[in-house]
Amino acid sequence: MITDAAVIEEPLVEKELDLVRKRVFTIPSYTTLGGKTIKNVRIGYETYGTLNAARDNAILIVHFFSGTSHAAGRYAKKDQEAGYWDAIIGPGKAIDTDKYFVVSSDTLTNVNAFDPQVVTTGPASIDPDTGKPYGMSFPVVTIRDFVHVQKALLDMLGVKHLHAVAGPSMGSMQALEWGTAFPDMVDRVIAVIPAGLEADPYLIGMLSLWCAPIKLDANWNGGNYYGGREPLAGLTQALKLVTLNGRHYGWANTFCARDGIDAGSPLLQGFDQNFAIEDVLSNMCRGRVAGIDANSLLYMARACQLYSLGHQGNPLHGVQNIRAKIMLMPGKSDLLMFPEYARKAADILRTHGKQVDYVELEGEGGHFDGLLAINQAGHALQKFLEC
Amino acid sequence: MITDAAVIEEPLVEKELDLVRKRVFTIPSYTTLGGKTIKNVRIGYETYGTLNAARDNAILIVHFFSGTSHAAGRYAKKDQEAGYWDAIIGPGKAIDTDKYFVVSSDTLTNVNAFDPQVVTTGPASIDPDTGKPYGMSFPVVTIRDFVHVQKALLDMLGVKHLHAVAGPSMGSMQALEWGTAFPDMVDRVIAVIPAGLEADPYLIGMLSLWCAPIKLDANWNGGNYYGGREPLAGLTQALKLVTLNGRHYGWANTFCARDGIDAGSPLLQGFDQNFAIEDVLSNMCRGRVAGIDANSLLYMARACQLYSLGHQGNPLHGVQNIRAKIMLMPGKSDLLMFPEYARKAADILRTHGKQVDYVELEGEGGHFDGLLAINQAGHALQKFLEC
Repeated sequence: MITDAAVIEEPLVEKELDLVRKRVFTIPSYTTLGGKTIKNVRIGYETYGTLNAARDNAILIVHFFSGTSHAAGRYAKKDQEAGYWDAIIGPGKAIDTDKYFVVSSDTLTNVNAFDPQVVTTGPASIDPDTGKPYGMSFPVVTIRDFVHVQKALLDMLGVKHLHAVAGPSMGSMQALEWGTAFPDMVDRVIAVIPAGLEADPYLIGMLSLWCAPIKLDANWNGGNYYGGREPLAGLTQALKLVTLNGRHYGWANTFCARDGIDAGSPLLQGFDQNFAIEDVLSNMCRGRVAGIDANSLLYMARACQLYSLGHQGNPLHGVQNIRAKIMLMPGKSDLLMFPEYARKAADILRTHGKQVDYVELEGEGGHFDGLLAINQAGHALQKFLEC
Repeated sequence: MITDAAVIEEPLVEKELDLVRKRVFTIPSYTTLGGKTIKNVRIGYETYGTLNAARDNAILIVHFFSGTSHAAGRYAKKDQEAGYWDAIIGPGKAIDTDKYFVVSSDTLTNVNAFDPQVVTTGPASIDPDTGKPYGMSFPVVTIRDFVHVQKALLDMLGVKHLHAVAGPSMGSMQALEWGTAFPDMVDRVIAVIPAGLEADPYLIGMLSLWCAPIKLDANWNGGNYYGGREPLAGLTQALKLVTLNGRHYGWANTFCARDGIDAGSPLLQGFDQNFAIEDVLSNMCRGRVAGIDANSLLYMARACQLYSLGHQGNPLHGVQNIRAKIMLMPGKSDLLMFPEYARKAADILRTHGKQVDYVELEGEGGHFDGLLAINQAGHALQKFLEC
């Protein structure tokens, strides 16, 4: 798939102590699963820890739908938030960077295309052939394409073998695809809050509904909005739906439902007054839209919808390929990628002779417990990495 | 609340054997819980069976969010579909029309405002003061307002007592509100696939997201679209979300996920090709949009969001009022009004000394099992009605 030698765009500079930095990996030309060629693919990545002499201590971290390669650490000491899995990645933590060389990569069509800390190639990128952003002319990409680009990155870094590949949500899709795409290279697959072995019709439908508000926004304009007014109203509504689908009523019910609904209530007098949860969702999404590209969200949704370990007409082709030990870690309160998905996947994998560990995350936070409540999984992850 | 005598608009005509017909009830003036006056309120209703001499055999049926008063029977012999609870309402059925006089009423702001078989007063109605449709100037209405209008209807019909009031989903809200609004009049409350004792923040948020696509459609135009282009694209997306939220992955997974995703797949070549579930949702909603008024959906969502048995600053005020026996009947696979909502409601009601029966509907159909799989509940309902 890689038609030219992969190169590092930037020279490595001395790393600040304890701080992480984004690096950029470039592929001059990449051909997608669908047979389309993308020139000048640029992908951001971060590394934590050191590759050992045997080059066999690497762990790849693959991110979720709206995530980035910032899995651990801080860019600057003043950063309020660390990477999304900082609770389990770092010196002495479950994914111990004193022991492992951890690589975390941005995907193609990362939704945070306008975030200065994200480097991705997607519909917001300039098409070298036209000098203009691709928009919806960018090729459809798949989870398998994300994996192929990550493979090129690991090749460039000199990583020949993966102790593990781990990711939450859409990251679980990439992790399992890694297991089937490069079975001899991957020892362990850690699929947290997983979709299972394919995106099922319910998830496909929900992803489609996430996209709908963007396409309804007149500013979307068929994806041709770069340099003009972006479809921010539609994007905001899309993010709200993603956010609520990713949570659970246990989380929502930490907020006030309403004040009384007696005659004087402003909520009874018209539609100007919001319910508390509406303001919560608005506030959570408002700060994020500036970094997110609406078209990229459509491409990410498509990639997730297309996710299936089945290939070449055989829905179990990919399952049969896997050699890695697999850990499935659904969230008990997950209302997006239900625990049942993981249980069903475990059954199928075991039927095919695969070794499967199954651990459920406790919590009432919904799907996002795979991110926000991951600290509880430290011991199980550490044990699995040592088995 | 009713400021003039309620009247029947149409004379009763001889009823065709075994067929039901829509009747229209009119209130010259109604004042909402929020203190706004609506003139010339017209509401459709159907009746099945006969009111006995003691006038104590009446059962009121209250409909769900996108439902109508057509709960049982057919309008014409050629009708393919009967009313939504026909499985449990009729001669010899659980709600036995040989024994009970069943009344089923359209609500205010019924979403099916353009359906010729629905009679409602809402934003699509003509404001007598302006001669034009109200649009978003129609007053906000509540579940309690629906109940007050139904009370006026029952008064007109000579019904002084209710053997039971029963409804699914938003109907459960009305049924429980009946129990607290008119505690001496109601013997039994049957709350199927219930929201509990209030709409919780999760449900409030989801209802808000149902509304979002409508408001994003440029044709919505702040609700001023009557006589012009309706916001059908937004309405269709709203209905798709309602539909998928109302189902379960067990239902979705009866459809094909995708064909293979090998290089030749049309799904990989662009965004023109839909996934099967997207077409399923489109086909389910396409035929319905013509009958539905987008503004009315916004009003219905608001009414549901405002639902709470708490009044006068006391969140349990309404619970304490109830004297009826209560049956709570959630669906095991419900992903919109979760079984946990009903369990929590049962706990609170019992703590306050109320008699609660609790029965879970089996099935993998999600929330809609309260409609489509209600036949399984016949025996439990019959027993509850005789207790």
